[in-house]
Amino acid sequence: MLVNCVVYQDGMKVAEIATDQIHEYLRRPNAFVWVALHDPGAPEFEQMQREFGLHPLAIEDAQQGHQRPKIEEYGEAVFAVLHMIEPTDGQFDVGEVDIFAGPNYVLSMRSHAQRGFQEVRARCEREPELLRQGSGYVLYALMDAVVDRYFPILDRLEDELDAIEQRIFAPESSPRSNIEALYELKQRLMIMKHAVAPLLEGVSALTGGRVPSLCAGLREYFRDISDHLQRLNQTADSIRDTIATAISVNLSMITLQESETMKRLAAYAALVAVPTLIAGIYGMNFQHMPELSWRYGYESILLVMAALDGYLFYRLRKAKWL
Amino acid sequence: MLVNCVVYQDGMKVAEIATDQIHEYLRRPNAFVWVALHDPGAPEFEQMQREFGLHPLAIEDAQQGHQRPKIEEYGEAVFAVLHMIEPTDGQFDVGEVDIFAGPNYVLSMRSHAQRGFQEVRARCEREPELLRQGSGYVLYALMDAVVDRYFPILDRLEDELDAIEQRIFAPESSPRSNIEALYELKQRLMIMKHAVAPLLEGVSALTGGRVPSLCAGLREYFRDISDHLQRLNQTADSIRDTIATAISVNLSMITLQESETMKRLAAYAALVAVPTLIAGIYGMNFQHMPELSWRYGYESILLVMAALDGYLFYRLRKAKWL
Amino acid sequence: MLVNCVVYQDGMKVAEIATDQIHEYLRRPNAFVWVALHDPGAPEFEQMQREFGLHPLAIEDAQQGHQRPKIEEYGEAVFAVLHMIEPTDGQFDVGEVDIFAGPNYVLSMRSHAQRGFQEVRARCEREPELLRQGSGYVLYALMDAVVDRYFPILDRLEDELDAIEQRIFAPESSPRSNIEALYELKQRLMIMKHAVAPLLEGVSALTGGRVPSLCAGLREYFRDISDHLQRLNQTADSIRDTIATAISVNLSMITLQESETMKRLAAYAALVAVPTLIAGIYGMNFQHMPELSWRYGYESILLVMAALDGYLFYRLRKAKWL
Amino acid sequence: MLVNCVVYQDGMKVAEIATDQIHEYLRRPNAFVWVALHDPGAPEFEQMQREFGLHPLAIEDAQQGHQRPKIEEYGEAVFAVLHMIEPTDGQFDVGEVDIFAGPNYVLSMRSHAQRGFQEVRARCEREPELLRQGSGYVLYALMDAVVDRYFPILDRLEDELDAIEQRIFAPESSPRSNIEALYELKQRLMIMKHAVAPLLEGVSALTGGRVPSLCAGLREYFRDISDHLQRLNQTADSIRDTIATAISVNLSMITLQESETMKRLAAYAALVAVPTLIAGIYGMNFQHMPELSWRYGYESILLVMAALDGYLFYRLRKAKWL
Amino acid sequence: MLVNCVVYQDGMKVAEIATDQIHEYLRRPNAFVWVALHDPGAPEFEQMQREFGLHPLAIEDAQQGHQRPKIEEYGEAVFAVLHMIEPTDGQFDVGEVDIFAGPNYVLSMRSHAQRGFQEVRARCEREPELLRQGSGYVLYALMDAVVDRYFPILDRLEDELDAIEQRIFAPESSPRSNIEALYELKQRLMIMKHAVAPLLEGVSALTGGRVPSLCAGLREYFRDISDHLQRLNQTADSIRDTIATAISVNLSMITLQESETMKRLAAYAALVAVPTLIAGIYGMNFQHMPELSWRYGYESILLVMAALDGYLFYRLRKAKWL
Repeated sequence: MLVNCVVYQDGMKVAEIATDQIHEYLRRPNAFVWVALHDPGAPEFEQMQREFGLHPLAIEDAQQGHQRPKIEEYGEAVFAVLHMIEPTDGQFDVGEVDIFAGPNYVLSMRSHAQRGFQEVRARCEREPELLRQGSGYVLYALMDAVVDRYFPILDRLEDELDAIEQRIFAPESSPRSNIEALYELKQRLMIMKHAVAPLLEGVSALTGGRVPSLCAGLREYFRDISDHLQRLNQTADSIRDTIATAISVNLSMITLQESETMKRLAAYAALVAVPTLIAGIYGMNFQHMPELSWRYGYESILLVMAALDGYLFYRLRKAKWL
Repeated sequence: MLVNCVVYQDGMKVAEIATDQIHEYLRRPNAFVWVALHDPGAPEFEQMQREFGLHPLAIEDAQQGHQRPKIEEYGEAVFAVLHMIEPTDGQFDVGEVDIFAGPNYVLSMRSHAQRGFQEVRARCEREPELLRQGSGYVLYALMDAVVDRYFPILDRLEDELDAIEQRIFAPESSPRSNIEALYELKQRLMIMKHAVAPLLEGVSALTGGRVPSLCAGLREYFRDISDHLQRLNQTADSIRDTIATAISVNLSMITLQESETMKRLAAYAALVAVPTLIAGIYGMNFQHMPELSWRYGYESILLVMAALDGYLFYRLRKAKWL
Repeated sequence: MLVNCVVYQDGMKVAEIATDQIHEYLRRPNAFVWVALHDPGAPEFEQMQREFGLHPLAIEDAQQGHQRPKIEEYGEAVFAVLHMIEPTDGQFDVGEVDIFAGPNYVLSMRSHAQRGFQEVRARCEREPELLRQGSGYVLYALMDAVVDRYFPILDRLEDELDAIEQRIFAPESSPRSNIEALYELKQRLMIMKHAVAPLLEGVSALTGGRVPSLCAGLREYFRDISDHLQRLNQTADSIRDTIATAISVNLSMITLQESETMKRLAAYAALVAVPTLIAGIYGMNFQHMPELSWRYGYESILLVMAALDGYLFYRLRKAKWL
Repeated sequence: MLVNCVVYQDGMKVAEIATDQIHEYLRRPNAFVWVALHDPGAPEFEQMQREFGLHPLAIEDAQQGHQRPKIEEYGEAVFAVLHMIEPTDGQFDVGEVDIFAGPNYVLSMRSHAQRGFQEVRARCEREPELLRQGSGYVLYALMDAVVDRYFPILDRLEDELDAIEQRIFAPESSPRSNIEALYELKQRLMIMKHAVAPLLEGVSALTGGRVPSLCAGLREYFRDISDHLQRLNQTADSIRDTIATAISVNLSMITLQESETMKRLAAYAALVAVPTLIAGIYGMNFQHMPELSWRYGYESILLVMAALDGYLFYRLRKAKWL
Repeated sequence: MLVNCVVYQDGMKVAEIATDQIHEYLRRPNAFVWVALHDPGAPEFEQMQREFGLHPLAIEDAQQGHQRPKIEEYGEAVFAVLHMIEPTDGQFDVGEVDIFAGPNYVLSMRSHAQRGFQEVRARCEREPELLRQGSGYVLYALMDAVVDRYFPILDRLEDELDAIEQRIFAPESSPRSNIEALYELKQRLMIMKHAVAPLLEGVSALTGGRVPSLCAGLREYFRDISDHLQRLNQTADSIRDTIATAISVNLSMITLQESETMKRLAAYAALVAVPTLIAGIYGMNFQHMPELSWRYGYESILLVMAALDGYLFYRLRKAKWL
């Protein structure tokens, strides 16, 4: 579906045009067309390929979807694929935005993602001196927006990890739910990681050595994105490492709880076993067992049992078994 | 066994020829011969080496089989080895396709693999403008077909992993079968990984710096293969990482189940031990045990036993031990 | 807040000036202005950007905070971000210092950090022959001060690890607190690691190949910082590795303690079970049980019980079960 | 000890000569001397150094033995160290072959290895057109022979691993012997790895960039060795990875077996504890226990015990505890 | 403290001189001064800096100590830091040797290390043709000596690991002491690793690309050191890997021992529980229990108990539980 199709010249918006007029504006000097689509269908793909002369392999990738993030050059044009991550109900929905940028056009196609880029367009239009730099700046602005949206998501993952960590060491935690939460957190982290790591690779090609002419004057801007991606990537690696440690720590806590449970059980068993032995002794049928005929033999022996158990209880509690 | 032996000129099929005529057609301008063999025998290897002048080391590799995937240059010719993975009964059959490509010929030899490349040939013949690019394009088309066949296989591995994951956290799972499934999944994953990772290395040589003249105008096409391989490789790495985590999580679950079983056992033991103690006490032979002569002493004590067990049961259930 | 704003010429302090006079001094030959701020507010950011013509992306990074450590060039200027780690109550407070250095100015902005750089300024002023090298030397001096402050912090982490290690192998250690301490130690280590590792990367750009003109004659000085960072980084990696080993060793110790506890329990159970069996035997109601009518049958059987338990105790102690 | 000392000219064997005649033949054009020694003593080292003018550091390495595999250039000469692995009684004997190759000589010294290189010499002599390429080809042929001998050894390690894997999941396996076998397998694998990995590094220097003049026309041959080494290396890494997984899986199986044993034990305990409780109840000494005076009270209660145990047995078997 | 201060010319010792005469000899052609200090104090540092014009950063590093091993160039001079490891009472004492080498001097300063370099000096003086190469050769000889001393230390670590490995699998091993030994071994290994790995990095700079003029003709010699370091490094990595495996194997052995202990315990429990049940049955007070009045009822039942236990014992032994 078409979101927008606008012509800019010298950093200023000229007109909203129909998509079939695009080729008329492509020849204007210092102008570029910025088209935004979402969830485009086959006819839109064909029209765009025709209007902008996109490379068939790039259009095939965009049409097929599920690409890994990447930045590729086709002649003078740049083709960028970025993942858009949108948390819904504790799950991550992974959308995709494909950006085709040539000297005189930018085409962004967003799929399976709720949130658009109206704010990016608005900000660009408010800063004509930057927009004057052309389609390369729009490419930067779109990529910057996508990457900036990763930060709060990763922050929330970090917060969740913090919460799980505190539960792990809490005395009455449920190791089963902890481990499930850690596992599930790692799954989501990997989605983030797969969005960030390959993109980092791709962006570095826009900041180092030979740069596409499109991005020529914007090296510092793309380096800024690369820097953000590195920060995200490092944080993700660090969370991953912490999850691995937390899983092994959780295993230790499980084994430890098991060991403590065993001690408690054994302590209770002792409290039962000792009086059972005594009762057994006085259940023997020897003819000559003087205690049996004592007037308060029974009561005394009950007291002895209670006393022994009391002493045992005291010792076991002191040894932290109970 | 010969599958096909066809001459193409200017992107169009000219004729199917016999293999002993090949050398006659090799001198034609803008033409190339495309030969497909499967499970070739020694005489076919010799004939092909003679007809195309293949390098003895390359032919030795092809004849011997069980090569790691690779792409090697011999003078103007390119020698590519790819693995073909075919799932049968939950196992992976690993076949091999060896492709020799020179300026005027392509020779593909498939071994231990059911599925051929008829569809690739058909697609090539439908697109004469691409086929006109010569043997390099055929090399691309064959490699692309092999690599594209990896995707559904890897997808299925991912699905299987998802299924195992859900079983791990299911309350009544069998950890033994989970771990066996994870281990077996990893074995198959490694087969996939060994098909993809070395090939990725090899293909990058066809996209970067100095490229064999054969592939000169096709850089974007081989980069597309490289991109697919990177995606496969990343997914495989991610699955491998998840399997490792799942194995350690499964160990935690086993330990946890053990711990829970132990608590259940202990709870039942308590339910038996306490009345046993009481029975022991009233089995003692003291002369003065007033309860013994009570009219309803026996019945009362049975009630006491039942009441104690009832109370214990309630407490243990509340503590989730039962 | 402004800390200092001083003009230096030929290595000597010329005057403390007001920040709005800065631009007047920037044109002097062989002179540079060194401004130090802490926790600057928006107006100070704006003023500084105006006075020194700082790049908007750099100023944005500084204003936003929470950057990863880095060293970036903007034209002739260098922008450095360093983390300042200050331990308080066993926790690490992470502050940040942002340094902008141009040919004729140095601007340091410290945030969320108690300790300033007065000592650095004092040392610089005592060594005019070094300060004569200009703003690059001040950049070095500030970075060197920040990096040198990492050493005692890392040393203390190492000491703490040593203490935990000794507790792990101590016979009466608490594995629960050990593991908690290890986990917490690792968290703090990662903060240190995140301060050091990215900076190391950045500093190497000031020592290798093409160096910003600002730092031209100071290669050996920056190599010295790089060397310190490498030392810190290596130590951090080594601590991390040791923590991982310690966690797995601790798990082994937990399992071992569990196993030893089980043996102790079983030993005590045996000491109770054997006399219980004997008591049971003499509690049987057979008519012909000669021992029952023995005059000292009861006493003898008590002695037998005691003797058996004594023997068992001796054996179990010898086998180290008790 | 001398094995052979032969002069070759234009690819043909000219004569077997005595080692003190070597220097007479070294000046002949298109000729080279190929000397093979095994377990050489100090005088032979000295003589060879004198005859061929070997570099003192290389001769020192060869004399000392226990070098890591490597390929080094000394001026025009190449010095190669390779490990020879010979399995005896399930152990690996590690021998060494040191090859000195100069423009007009090849000297191979084999130590602590049974199997020689007669077959290599024989094959070389059967292929004069290849041998005509001179000493570089002999260097290739020797290295190729050593590397090819690694394959069956690694294959056997893989087979052993397969056998252990099947034992791990077998219901009645002995985890103790499995883990011992895995550990021992890893030890042997590391010996193989240490033979392969450093050599791979060294050989790549003979295929890439600047190549010693000796090996100039043989790039494809050395690339073939490099390819074999990569295959070996990859297989070794994969086995190592699988061993690590197998060890952790085996630990899971141990824990699982423990858990299953515990359930069996608990089941048997229940089968004894319940009738014990019942017997205890009817061992009580209450005056009014109607069942005691029933005619078939005893028999009935035995039946009740048997019935209860039968029911328990049925339930426990259904729950797979027995 | 001064160890030696000697002037060499054309490879021959000229004279022992006082340290304050050094500057007089520095101008002689083809001569160099070789000074050896141990545990130098501040005045010696100052004197040396003055005499040889050492770089302040290098002297600061040397004075401060606890540097990581490194090799740095300061103009024409080379500054090398090496660790000296001396085992005492199973611990490693880490000393340091700092070597300053310029075109006409070598200064070695040894700290916290017992063993000096007299043997190196003696060997150098015995080989004037090598010593003629100047101070670069002395630098090589000192570094070679330090590195060669690492080998026996690492060999002993390997031997210790072998000993621990055999204890792990021994039936009556103490897992607690094994794990402690492994942990302690790893600590010492890391000390070795920290001596070797950074030095390897540094030495490679003396063998590759641009080499300090001092070491110009000695490339093969420094490559030899680099080769030794690589061997040490590889061995250390391999030991580390084996330790990690051994720790996890040891955990398996602990779990296994626990499991076997549990079975033994359960077997003994069964041997007691079964006769206890029988005794309980004949302790019941039913009026009609025919066995009770049998003449040899008591003896028969004791025999039954013994027979049952005998049978159980036989079964349990066969199942390897006892």
